[in-house]
Amino acid sequence: MSRIVMKFGGTSVADLDRIRHVAQRVKAEVDAGHEVAVVVSAMSGVTNQLIGYVDSAGKLADLREYDVVVSSGEQVTSGLLAIVLQSIGVNARSWLGWQAPIRTDGSHGSARIREIEVEDLIRRFGEGQVAVFAGFQGIGPDGRISTLGRGGSDTSAVALAAALKADRCDIYTDVDGVYTTDPRIVTKARKLDKITYEEMLEMASQGAKVLQTRSVEMAMKHSVRVQVRSSFNDAEGTLVVDEDEIVEDALVSGIAYSRDEAKITLIRVPDRPGIAAGIFGPLADASINVDMIVQSYSADGNSTDMTFTVTKTDMDRAVSVLEELRDELKYDALTSDPNVVKVSVIGVGMRSHAGVAKKMFTTLADKGINLQVISTSEIKVSVLLAEEYAELALRSLHTAYGLDAA
Amino acid sequence: MSRIVMKFGGTSVADLDRIRHVAQRVKAEVDAGHEVAVVVSAMSGVTNQLIGYVDSAGKLADLREYDVVVSSGEQVTSGLLAIVLQSIGVNARSWLGWQAPIRTDGSHGSARIREIEVEDLIRRFGEGQVAVFAGFQGIGPDGRISTLGRGGSDTSAVALAAALKADRCDIYTDVDGVYTTDPRIVTKARKLDKITYEEMLEMASQGAKVLQTRSVEMAMKHSVRVQVRSSFNDAEGTLVVDEDEIVEDALVSGIAYSRDEAKITLIRVPDRPGIAAGIFGPLADASINVDMIVQSYSADGNSTDMTFTVTKTDMDRAVSVLEELRDELKYDALTSDPNVVKVSVIGVGMRSHAGVAKKMFTTLADKGINLQVISTSEIKVSVLLAEEYAELALRSLHTAYGLDAA
Repeated sequence: MSRIVMKFGGTSVADLDRIRHVAQRVKAEVDAGHEVAVVVSAMSGVTNQLIGYVDSAGKLADLREYDVVVSSGEQVTSGLLAIVLQSIGVNARSWLGWQAPIRTDGSHGSARIREIEVEDLIRRFGEGQVAVFAGFQGIGPDGRISTLGRGGSDTSAVALAAALKADRCDIYTDVDGVYTTDPRIVTKARKLDKITYEEMLEMASQGAKVLQTRSVEMAMKHSVRVQVRSSFNDAEGTLVVDEDEIVEDALVSGIAYSRDEAKITLIRVPDRPGIAAGIFGPLADASINVDMIVQSYSADGNSTDMTFTVTKTDMDRAVSVLEELRDELKYDALTSDPNVVKVSVIGVGMRSHAGVAKKMFTTLADKGINLQVISTSEIKVSVLLAEEYAELALRSLHTAYGLDAA
Repeated sequence: MSRIVMKFGGTSVADLDRIRHVAQRVKAEVDAGHEVAVVVSAMSGVTNQLIGYVDSAGKLADLREYDVVVSSGEQVTSGLLAIVLQSIGVNARSWLGWQAPIRTDGSHGSARIREIEVEDLIRRFGEGQVAVFAGFQGIGPDGRISTLGRGGSDTSAVALAAALKADRCDIYTDVDGVYTTDPRIVTKARKLDKITYEEMLEMASQGAKVLQTRSVEMAMKHSVRVQVRSSFNDAEGTLVVDEDEIVEDALVSGIAYSRDEAKITLIRVPDRPGIAAGIFGPLADASINVDMIVQSYSADGNSTDMTFTVTKTDMDRAVSVLEELRDELKYDALTSDPNVVKVSVIGVGMRSHAGVAKKMFTTLADKGINLQVISTSEIKVSVLLAEEYAELALRSLHTAYGLDAA
């Protein structure tokens, strides 16, 4: 007997037929003798509809009210799945965030889970009851509904698996698992049997939309064995595990890309101490996240060009902030470009192997692709390219690193 | 300064434009210096959609899960109205049933309110905060969401007004108030300025769909001054008040009708003690409510015809129950007829005036309308007619009792 958490995303519970299908999957695990907690997202489209209502309602002063509205989607799914499970003879009850409770901090709209009380759940497992959790939600210290931010149901599932000391946390989604890269672009992309937490984290934060970043961090911290698999078929998915479980010794495990980037360059900023703080401090104050940064000295030797990326949605705001600081920062000109893409090669193998970055640069150079910004970490190399080269870059790199399916 | 409860039904919060309109109404009361609690229904259509989901989900074993799903509609509206109020400068927060809390009994799906804790609300009134309540919901003794049954938001509003000792409870709806009869049928119907609780109760239970019966009972019990008024215009509505506040001395205040009736007759039942229990006991066991009952002796003197009404939706089930009992009850034949309408004249004035029933019978007889069943209470006379006479009966009676608008 194992204890497992099963999480079903929006497309997996899109309508009642899909929810019935989910119920059968849950029943199969129950019939196999497992203790099961289920976490469900809102039916697909519902959260966007609710956010649309909030956006139309007026300037949002109070994220607590946003949470009241938006959390209702998962509430509905949890009740419906409990009803369907009961109708096929499975003992089940729904749990809302405030009921377990799933205690979070007070950051409404993007709360972090602090603690989940599981004694009652475990007692009910003993009575053969399945717990059906509304994902994405908890209760804040103020006694009000909190939501965990986009993709938060993944985090709910992993946090629940950690609290329950579950043997497995299966994330059911509309893809078969984690691929070496986006199979819609690279037809030779392969599904990975296993991937390390760190690689998954880079894949997630670099734009692969399979698992939410925070849920991977949490899984890594608590050593939760996460499996990403499809709710539409019975194929094995991808296991996200500790590095020591990986036997295959690939240099690069996957290639991620993100179109959600925009590039901003400040041309000829006087080179003096504190200039970086003068630029990035005000952006941080405006809650604008800066990702890649490159500083290049200009020809005259006493000024510098500063290039960095922000998300596309933040670009206009970032430009405004910096234009207001023009007199202070004394730069010559400001350019911005939303037509860029970030491509990243990721793999724990590169820790012990040199030449990964070099292969990336030569491969892209061979195709005539200009690299605008480069950034690296221990297990990844990212480059910024003109968006029109995205597909070409992905396919070339996928082949170059030997990732193509046979 | 007064303390008022404002309740807005589904059509009054049908979309964001209507919710903005509601917010302006609330702001007007706040600007006038009043302490305000608002109760909202789900946006129109939402509750039916949610019930549709539940119905499709499978045989409903567990009304607690029904409540989880169906209560989400009001949750959304409460959050949205709070956001809109904040956006126009009104200090507001949403309250869900479990938050106040609004404590109910454990009858999920049709719970009754036991107690509402109002200390925190009253403290917040002192800080100028408007409380926006999700109607129709509370929390049961099991710590789970309970709903109050159809029309329950009216009950939420009246219960809140009673607990808060509010000066007024305004029920905003899509009609201008309570009419002498249905203005869609009788064009000369008049809006009543005032009506007594008891009359309103009869009007509500006799099919006038303005206020939910239970909310009127509760208003009467706690002497809550209820005003029914339109959210679409500024006209004064109808005040529901104690009898001693009524100065106008009308014999009949209104005429209600209900098409939701079906007639069943058992022909020639042997007349012996216990026969009524033998018929109505099994119906009650099957949760079938019986309304009007008439027993008439047949020609032979030792058997009786038993005629009674049930709701149209219960008719087939009632017939099945009685057919199974045929050997036991020994009746000759069973007939059923869904094509009937119940028409009721209602007025506290008839307590002190004779002749109200007589006028009803002669008026209908003059039009050649046959009365199938008659039942009376202290303040009403009801008759069952063939459905095709409904409009003719309503118009004739409206004129006969002097209710026509000038």
